[in-house]
Amino acid sequence: MPESAESALEALRAYSRTSGFNVLHGIEIERAADGEAELAMPWRPEAGQYQGYLHAGVIGALVDTACGCAAATLVGRVMASHFSVNCLRPAAGQRFVARARVVKAGRSVVFTTAEVFAEGEGGRTLVANGETILNVVGPTTS
Amino acid sequence: MPESAESALEALRAYSRTSGFNVLHGIEIERAADGEAELAMPWRPEAGQYQGYLHAGVIGALVDTACGCAAATLVGRVMASHFSVNCLRPAAGQRFVARARVVKAGRSVVFTTAEVFAEGEGGRTLVANGETILNVVGPTTS
Amino acid sequence: MPESAESALEALRAYSRTSGFNVLHGIEIERAADGEAELAMPWRPEAGQYQGYLHAGVIGALVDTACGCAAATLVGRVMASHFSVNCLRPAAGQRFVARARVVKAGRSVVFTTAEVFAEGEGGRTLVANGETILNVVGPTTS
Amino acid sequence: MPESAESALEALRAYSRTSGFNVLHGIEIERAADGEAELAMPWRPEAGQYQGYLHAGVIGALVDTACGCAAATLVGRVMASHFSVNCLRPAAGQRFVARARVVKAGRSVVFTTAEVFAEGEGGRTLVANGETILNVVGPTTS
Repeated sequence: MPESAESALEALRAYSRTSGFNVLHGIEIERAADGEAELAMPWRPEAGQYQGYLHAGVIGALVDTACGCAAATLVGRVMASHFSVNCLRPAAGQRFVARARVVKAGRSVVFTTAEVFAEGEGGRTLVANGETILNVVGPTTS
Repeated sequence: MPESAESALEALRAYSRTSGFNVLHGIEIERAADGEAELAMPWRPEAGQYQGYLHAGVIGALVDTACGCAAATLVGRVMASHFSVNCLRPAAGQRFVARARVVKAGRSVVFTTAEVFAEGEGGRTLVANGETILNVVGPTTS
Repeated sequence: MPESAESALEALRAYSRTSGFNVLHGIEIERAADGEAELAMPWRPEAGQYQGYLHAGVIGALVDTACGCAAATLVGRVMASHFSVNCLRPAAGQRFVARARVVKAGRSVVFTTAEVFAEGEGGRTLVANGETILNVVGPTTS
Repeated sequence: MPESAESALEALRAYSRTSGFNVLHGIEIERAADGEAELAMPWRPEAGQYQGYLHAGVIGALVDTACGCAAATLVGRVMASHFSVNCLRPAAGQRFVARARVVKAGRSVVFTTAEVFAEGEGGRTLVANGETILNVVGPTTS
């Protein structure tokens, strides 16, 4: 049952909207196709750590979610088994963007990598990178 | 300026309360002393991913925050440079607890490890483990 | 076809002896049972990095191999998909010991953790810790 | 004391030749400049795991060493605090190549990433990727 790229993106967005966390923090899937995905979310104080930068947990959520979407475009439903984040710079900005891509999609394991950018008056800055290892669960639509 | 263990815990709690994310998700520091820390948070749908389990980002937040608190009890202010999470089991429960401890506190780098448990009717289950590498910034109080 | 613990250990040792790297560097399986394993190897200059400490690659080999042995005691043949190492202290000693244990053995994925110790005149020192994620391939003996 | 790119490369090669492990396994620095580095090593059975693929420890050594060389071109002497490896495919080939680059070089911490390729009759295949976090120790030459 092949899906058009657009309906696949809509399916991922529908999944994401059933996540209370993604809705609460305004995490949106901007793009997801061909083993790549891009998410965006606005800065809000409720997503901040004690110094007013984006909380490491939210950075982890962006990495994990973007990687999951990138993997889902190739192999359907996935479950993360491992993810890691490098905090490269203080994550200060008005908007945050995560870009992920699949490094290797195997039969049962998918390896992905992601970058997180802060956008503000000074342009776009790389604030974190990370990776996620996912296990294939099954097709997105049943 | 040595602090009592209690005032050190209060200082960490005061920091945590300035984090919009920690307040929003009800993350509380239960205990922090001698290179160890324990956090707790209630389950709420706003912390969930699409299947209703605790979102990987929130698990990452618990790991990162618990590890940071454990490190802070030994070396004062810290900044995470890297953290990783293993998603061992679906994180379903009414309450979540993270326990962290310092593995090695060096002059400039602190290595920590953490476990995340779900609590529910069936008792307490290990749902994730992880680790955080932190850089020493300076004393907690200036 | 249940195996005795001893014959399982012998099977692991036989596998290890077919690894040119393990033989070259004198990596021996001391113990492997019930989701745990312990390896040992002697210090030799050929295993050193430029300052004369144990090379990070050899530390990684100890972590990966000890974790694989620990996993194999529970689920049979495994393949590592990911491993990581924290270099806690300079790895100086006359002998090195790695201890691994299974954190969670799932149907297809096994999570493990390990510690590496240096032994010398000053006793035993923790020099590294790490973890390995393994995929289940099948039974050790066919 | 600025160095020419060539003498910097020679200094790194001289360091590498004092590593018994790098000499034993024939690990050579092909290129190192401007935050990037490339290493190569021949396949030999002594570098193999039990199935005759390159041992995960050697893959880790390539990642760690290539990342260290890439970092050294920008900040001088470094010590790895953490490295990780994703085993994407069985590492079978006649020759192995590791390419690393610096993602972010801070005052005290350097984040790097690397890819490891197997070369054989079928061309060049990506068999692993990984990353290393390094602490700045000081200038390469004193």
